[in-house]
Amino acid sequence: MRIALAQINATLGDFNYNKDKILNYIQSAKEKKAELVIFPEASLFGYHPFDLLEREALVDQQTKTLKDLVKKIPAGIFVLVGGFEKNKNKKGRPYYNVVFLCAKNKILKTFRKELLPTGDVFDEARFIEKGKLSENYFKIGSKKFFLTICEDIWAWENKKGESIYLENPLKKIKKQKVDLVINMSASPFFQGKLKQREYVVQKTAKHFKAPMVYVNLVGAQDEIIYDGQSFLVDKKGITRFSCLDFEEDLNVFDLDTLEDWNGRGAKNKILETEQLRKALVLGIKDFCGKTGLSKVHLGLSGGIDSAVVACLAVDALGPNNVKLFALPTKFNQKQSFDLAQTLAKNLKIDLQTISIQSVFENIKSVVDQEYKINEFSLVHENLQSRIRGLLMMAYSNKAGSLLLTTGNKSEYATGYATLYGDMCGGLAVIGDLTKKQVYQLAEHFNKEYELIPHEIITRPPSAELRPNQKDQDSLPEYDVLDQAVVDIVEDRKRAKSKIDKWLVDILMKTEFKRWQSAPVLKVSEHSFGRGRRYPVAHRSKECV
Amino acid sequence: MRIALAQINATLGDFNYNKDKILNYIQSAKEKKAELVIFPEASLFGYHPFDLLEREALVDQQTKTLKDLVKKIPAGIFVLVGGFEKNKNKKGRPYYNVVFLCAKNKILKTFRKELLPTGDVFDEARFIEKGKLSENYFKIGSKKFFLTICEDIWAWENKKGESIYLENPLKKIKKQKVDLVINMSASPFFQGKLKQREYVVQKTAKHFKAPMVYVNLVGAQDEIIYDGQSFLVDKKGITRFSCLDFEEDLNVFDLDTLEDWNGRGAKNKILETEQLRKALVLGIKDFCGKTGLSKVHLGLSGGIDSAVVACLAVDALGPNNVKLFALPTKFNQKQSFDLAQTLAKNLKIDLQTISIQSVFENIKSVVDQEYKINEFSLVHENLQSRIRGLLMMAYSNKAGSLLLTTGNKSEYATGYATLYGDMCGGLAVIGDLTKKQVYQLAEHFNKEYELIPHEIITRPPSAELRPNQKDQDSLPEYDVLDQAVVDIVEDRKRAKSKIDKWLVDILMKTEFKRWQSAPVLKVSEHSFGRGRRYPVAHRSKECV
Repeated sequence: MRIALAQINATLGDFNYNKDKILNYIQSAKEKKAELVIFPEASLFGYHPFDLLEREALVDQQTKTLKDLVKKIPAGIFVLVGGFEKNKNKKGRPYYNVVFLCAKNKILKTFRKELLPTGDVFDEARFIEKGKLSENYFKIGSKKFFLTICEDIWAWENKKGESIYLENPLKKIKKQKVDLVINMSASPFFQGKLKQREYVVQKTAKHFKAPMVYVNLVGAQDEIIYDGQSFLVDKKGITRFSCLDFEEDLNVFDLDTLEDWNGRGAKNKILETEQLRKALVLGIKDFCGKTGLSKVHLGLSGGIDSAVVACLAVDALGPNNVKLFALPTKFNQKQSFDLAQTLAKNLKIDLQTISIQSVFENIKSVVDQEYKINEFSLVHENLQSRIRGLLMMAYSNKAGSLLLTTGNKSEYATGYATLYGDMCGGLAVIGDLTKKQVYQLAEHFNKEYELIPHEIITRPPSAELRPNQKDQDSLPEYDVLDQAVVDIVEDRKRAKSKIDKWLVDILMKTEFKRWQSAPVLKVSEHSFGRGRRYPVAHRSKECV
Repeated sequence: MRIALAQINATLGDFNYNKDKILNYIQSAKEKKAELVIFPEASLFGYHPFDLLEREALVDQQTKTLKDLVKKIPAGIFVLVGGFEKNKNKKGRPYYNVVFLCAKNKILKTFRKELLPTGDVFDEARFIEKGKLSENYFKIGSKKFFLTICEDIWAWENKKGESIYLENPLKKIKKQKVDLVINMSASPFFQGKLKQREYVVQKTAKHFKAPMVYVNLVGAQDEIIYDGQSFLVDKKGITRFSCLDFEEDLNVFDLDTLEDWNGRGAKNKILETEQLRKALVLGIKDFCGKTGLSKVHLGLSGGIDSAVVACLAVDALGPNNVKLFALPTKFNQKQSFDLAQTLAKNLKIDLQTISIQSVFENIKSVVDQEYKINEFSLVHENLQSRIRGLLMMAYSNKAGSLLLTTGNKSEYATGYATLYGDMCGGLAVIGDLTKKQVYQLAEHFNKEYELIPHEIITRPPSAELRPNQKDQDSLPEYDVLDQAVVDIVEDRKRAKSKIDKWLVDILMKTEFKRWQSAPVLKVSEHSFGRGRRYPVAHRSKECV
């Protein structure tokens, strides 16, 4: 029996688009002689739905679309496709997260997810009722399968014997001999995530003493980037074959031999920085594609952050869809402008220059007079940043173009960003990257030739909002700060060092800025954005 | 046996402040001859903690503070106080939401919450593990009690037999004869919420055939406003006595007679609009107090929204802590300015006037030239709004004052607000009020005399961003729009009317603005803000 893994990029809420894509992949799977094709979690509805599940009419549309879909499934192939199903009982939450086993003109069986994730970006307990994994065995011909959906396989203890779940539903159910265990997922990317997946898949395969396929969604949805990287393991949990990362992919294997993979074979060692680049490029591309925008723009300061965002944007959308601006005052060094111009030229984009000096002076004189200000201060630094934001948003209004915001995670963590100024924009592209990772990406872009002028990488970072300003006048050295950001924000460790304590304190004080931040493309285990929900009005003092 | 209900306003994360307050209330309860004093849910830690629970050190601090607290409890009184407790097992989520039964020098018993809310603003399944209600019986002397925490009593079926919970934990446990059922809550206010509380409390009291006390938190935390209104019911569930709304309160009753209430007695019928006013005033006051800010400011346009926000701010903080600005262009009618000035005078506040006409013209000329714009458009409307935002934020920087934003729910729903313009600010005071409710509040403020000039209430609403603009050039009539907002956003109904369908469509299209909105004071069952989590990048079309 030949089985296909259809790693698709579904669009949230576009049921007809998803249906057509699913039908195309079914067709391709059939051409590769597959008798069963497996899609990712919720791929007919799209994922992560968030509170779209409040809108009952949308689930009705999906249900109707499913009926259309099964009518068009060709004979001779079984299909596993995910979506949501109404809970028709009076008790319990309104939906189940389900997989439909379909064939030509038929929905043969529905399987329900049992374990509902509620950590980080996940909110399944808001609208989803628990299913029972014990009902998820099924047969096709003489072959027996056991089906799980995403979180269902994540209750295994870690090496310290810990789990956030009291019980592992896989251990509770009666174990039956199966030919294949299936997991259909929408699992977000972060660096190191693949290892975690391999761990739980290996545990599950060994538990059932059966081979297992892990079929993951690909594509980005707001902040969340699904990386694909679906894979097949043998009954010892050893990876046999993998699908591509950050791209749609279709692969077929023979269930008896676990051979005949038609793709690129077992995964090669992939460069971490290249994965980061691919993730962010997909993040930009899908955010635009799925919101219906085709063009983006940003201010190019001559610094490293905007340089890297510009390169990512060009990778995602091509130079014709990226517009760059230089918005200098007299505080901006000539070198900054020259470097921005060289980069723009390298990217084959015109750099439109709008000096904001006279606008700044005009507003400054009003502000100084009205608010009785006699000396240069933070007020004036923020003014410059906000004038830039205002001009960039005017361009958004004029051109229907998405402003990309360029702050990095270390800046966001410390509040080293101006609310309604450089925080303006519809997508925070590198908001989950430490400064170090931004440099790594820059070096990566320069692997073959000097795309980003070398001086952009080597000069000391500066906001250039007053004479001779350097980031390190206000912030710790970035290598020290970056480590604290990883420890405190990503790993949620206790504050140990002096910098840790300083960071915890400033994190709490600057939460009001991040509350109003643009969506942040998530590439770490714990990023700013919807997966990190801190209060503003409180008086906790962790480090007193 | 005399029992006290201590309805306190705890501050999230300020354990010493909360401890001192709790000790003061214990003292007062003792003076009123109470032998048991009951505080609200999590009142030692403060509530809603959101992801502060990531910071283990904070829970440790709370645990340490609890030890200090019990040392200072006087002899002869038992205390029920809420907080969080570490889950010391390797399995399960890291904390329990608990109540400690304490007496002088002793923590006698710990009770754990079983039902964990995950809807709307609640996220308890992120960090909290389930307890077992069956362990929550206890005795003091000859009296027997059963203790529940907030959501524990919310699994009762509604009149249609529906519940979002599969099982009611109260029905599962073995029923014992008790003298009193206790519920300790942190239950947010919205109009109509009290009726829901009375329903579940009545169900619970009848179930146990025992009187019941419901002790609720008071005070605001970011978007959420706890209204207090703690109450006592007899074994039939009939309300005997109530505590004050939106204020701290302490009341004592005799358990044998359910009499001897020292407070104001059974609740009076409270005006809905007056409750709305109290809620929002508390929202502003606590947001400032708990973030450490004492001053606020806003632009007064001569329209109804900013007028009402100014009145609320003065109620919350007094006229000396509220600063008002007029920021006209030539599009603003003279009447608007005059009305703003009259209102400011009535509120006993100077109105600082900053004409933004020349700044607007200066930026407009740059924008028109650089972006090749030949005619007046949305670009220029937004420019004006953003220049105002920029000036108001400069004042924030200068004076350490909180900018209040003045958009209402009907505007937010339709995206009739400028991102980084009039959406600037740290708190959206009336962001959960329909336009109708804004008018009701205005009339309410004018109950005794004409505080808000009558013309502000009667003139047609206008953003005054172009000549002769009226809101109804772009929006449906507010009474129609308001009803659609209630139906679609609050009640999450299916779209029926043409306006409903238009609203669902525009809601989806404008989500990117609300993603970046300031915290919205929640006074309805479903408000914009953290309790409503919609995606931006999707292509759902509910109404095609």
